[in-house]
Amino acid sequence: MTLQLDFANIYPFIEENAFEKIGEQTRPALRTVLDRSGPGKEYLGWLDLPQQEPGTLERIQEVASGIREKDATLICIGIGGSYLGHKSVIEALQPYTDSVLYAGQNISADHLQHILDIIDEREEVYLNPISKSGTTTEPGIAFRVLRKWHEERYGEQGSASRIIATTDSSKGALRELSDQKGYQTFAIPDDVGGRYSVLTPVGLFPIAAAGIDIKALLGGAGAMRKQATSDSPENPSLRYAAVRNSLYEQGKAIEILSTFNPRLQYFTEWWKQLAGESEGKDRKGLFPASAVLSTDLHSLGQWIQDGPRNIFETFLTVKNSDHTITIEASNENADNLNYLAGKDFDAINEKAYQGTAQAHTDGGVPNLTVSVDKLSEETVGELIYFLEMAVAITGYRMDVNPFNQPGVEAYKTNMFRLLGKPGVG
Amino acid sequence: MTLQLDFANIYPFIEENAFEKIGEQTRPALRTVLDRSGPGKEYLGWLDLPQQEPGTLERIQEVASGIREKDATLICIGIGGSYLGHKSVIEALQPYTDSVLYAGQNISADHLQHILDIIDEREEVYLNPISKSGTTTEPGIAFRVLRKWHEERYGEQGSASRIIATTDSSKGALRELSDQKGYQTFAIPDDVGGRYSVLTPVGLFPIAAAGIDIKALLGGAGAMRKQATSDSPENPSLRYAAVRNSLYEQGKAIEILSTFNPRLQYFTEWWKQLAGESEGKDRKGLFPASAVLSTDLHSLGQWIQDGPRNIFETFLTVKNSDHTITIEASNENADNLNYLAGKDFDAINEKAYQGTAQAHTDGGVPNLTVSVDKLSEETVGELIYFLEMAVAITGYRMDVNPFNQPGVEAYKTNMFRLLGKPGVG
Repeated sequence: MTLQLDFANIYPFIEENAFEKIGEQTRPALRTVLDRSGPGKEYLGWLDLPQQEPGTLERIQEVASGIREKDATLICIGIGGSYLGHKSVIEALQPYTDSVLYAGQNISADHLQHILDIIDEREEVYLNPISKSGTTTEPGIAFRVLRKWHEERYGEQGSASRIIATTDSSKGALRELSDQKGYQTFAIPDDVGGRYSVLTPVGLFPIAAAGIDIKALLGGAGAMRKQATSDSPENPSLRYAAVRNSLYEQGKAIEILSTFNPRLQYFTEWWKQLAGESEGKDRKGLFPASAVLSTDLHSLGQWIQDGPRNIFETFLTVKNSDHTITIEASNENADNLNYLAGKDFDAINEKAYQGTAQAHTDGGVPNLTVSVDKLSEETVGELIYFLEMAVAITGYRMDVNPFNQPGVEAYKTNMFRLLGKPGVG
Repeated sequence: MTLQLDFANIYPFIEENAFEKIGEQTRPALRTVLDRSGPGKEYLGWLDLPQQEPGTLERIQEVASGIREKDATLICIGIGGSYLGHKSVIEALQPYTDSVLYAGQNISADHLQHILDIIDEREEVYLNPISKSGTTTEPGIAFRVLRKWHEERYGEQGSASRIIATTDSSKGALRELSDQKGYQTFAIPDDVGGRYSVLTPVGLFPIAAAGIDIKALLGGAGAMRKQATSDSPENPSLRYAAVRNSLYEQGKAIEILSTFNPRLQYFTEWWKQLAGESEGKDRKGLFPASAVLSTDLHSLGQWIQDGPRNIFETFLTVKNSDHTITIEASNENADNLNYLAGKDFDAINEKAYQGTAQAHTDGGVPNLTVSVDKLSEETVGELIYFLEMAVAITGYRMDVNPFNQPGVEAYKTNMFRLLGKPGVG
């Protein structure tokens, strides 16, 4: 395990000798997860997710390899947990790929038309509808439009051979359609909710299609699983959750996940779903916000430094980029930056992080740091499992069910009524 | 003016007969702006910004046209107010252009290397460093690296003829370098701060280079200026500010700007800087958060529906997309979506918005709606001026200086010390 936690800037806000105590207070919530004894326990399949059904991984890799060998474009059609997980991993590890595109995550004709314009110019296009039911509105209408384009391009059989559906193993509209048309399918496990599904075929197939090593990703998650399921005070997810709960109980309303790496922008979006949807219920929950620094130090930075002290901050840092760019000396030194000559961007970014953590500490913002050496399949896998477990613990400690999302139905019900859906009135 | 405000879902939370009263309470803050009598009054140049220095607009259009005729790539190098304004307008109005790229808004070697890889394949590359001082770290190091590439590609003279600097009119490192090398320049007015600078050459030149009609953009801002500088209770910025201040005074901690149009994702980022940096000081300020719906209804949606009631929501909606995609009937109706046949995406998106606004009202979230008919230069110009004035009013009503940003220095000072900058210790 390479993920590191640094709590040094918490101690001014949580006394160092209280650290053990808040860990003890939080351990029952960890045990509720591990004993599978709390509400939502039927959705704890993610705990074991470094393991997959026999043969699944190999089949994912085989289908993904076939797509990559053809230099094909894969369009993933999903929303929420059927979108953010793979999007965030692909942006972190293959940030500039254009072989995986996304549709069905909004109701924007301009966005969908843009996707249609792109694929008009591509030779080989595969579709990957991702939906447990197959009737969710946003991906449903996008798939209907894209499937028409696809059948016109390839014919009904040619289209069917280029559609891989990720859906329920036995029931639902997309399962029925897949069986009828002969689509290849991957199964969404029954015991894993959408926001915890990135390490199921929901996420793994698009991730593999982007050329990312899914075995290594699962290996990273597995390495973290050993730590994060341990009933020890050193359990990193427990320690992070204990801090989150303690600060929440002290009245902090907002957690800002601040990364210094723009490749993690969508990873913070994935975390916002994970934390917000798990904890935000029964009038409880930390509001999950995110920032990409140092960009947003010139945006939200002023507020973080001097605004109301109802926030705390979790830094997510990556010590080494894939590329090294070193500042060279300049004869004229017109920009007065020669004092940086010989330093590379990562070294400067590290000082920006250190300077920011100190400034925010001085400004009264409790903060902690989660860092990895570099972005790799292993470290991203670790981060996923680490955060999934921390949020589950925090939710139980807040006395909510971290695995349901009853509030998501409210807008849908209204929308269905307004759209005249049969049977909704 | 085409921008519409809808306060219907505020009335359960602010009594309808209190609406006039909170407007009256907020009017002194409006007068402080208009009389130019408050703290930061030396930065009120944005009030007049639909007007430009004589000849400036024409020169911006001429240089931008020259770049467009060559099918050239323009790299804008800036951070904060020298980044978010034009980025947000370009994403709103030319969302899929790849002729304008961005550097210097972070300290990421991977990001900068990606830009270098792209321009290696492009024939004509222009640079647009944007910095009042020319010594800001992030754009400074990016410009140093890009200028070296540029001079190697085009030679010193060829490079100089392809660099357009947006900087101070008389002083600073970038001004000196520009004079020495013979760069074309555009001036940043002294009386406009970074986050209010999108309608100065800071924003207008990149926006014009993306093929957007800047006269129409300023025309929209000018149309809103008439309304937003009026000392009438119908002033839309005053009405919005009055609601913001009233909800803040009632204890709301977070404002979520929720758009149903993904082309406005960066516009919400620009607003977060505008609001957060203007109001977040002296331990005051609404925390500015954003959401892109319906995407984030499957992410933050649960929290918004059922979490702590310390939020209010401002919807930003666009009634018509540029493209129309209509749902067709399907013989098999496998997805059960035939009830939508004949409806287009915009109609469905509108019902998603209405259903969401009702659901959040029912869930105890005060909300209001700012809507425009479509995204055009005129409506985006209106939105910019509308929000700039609303935030200025809110800041004065909170009794802060909306035009300074003292907290932004804290991380910089620490970073300079850690980097060994001469004279900082």
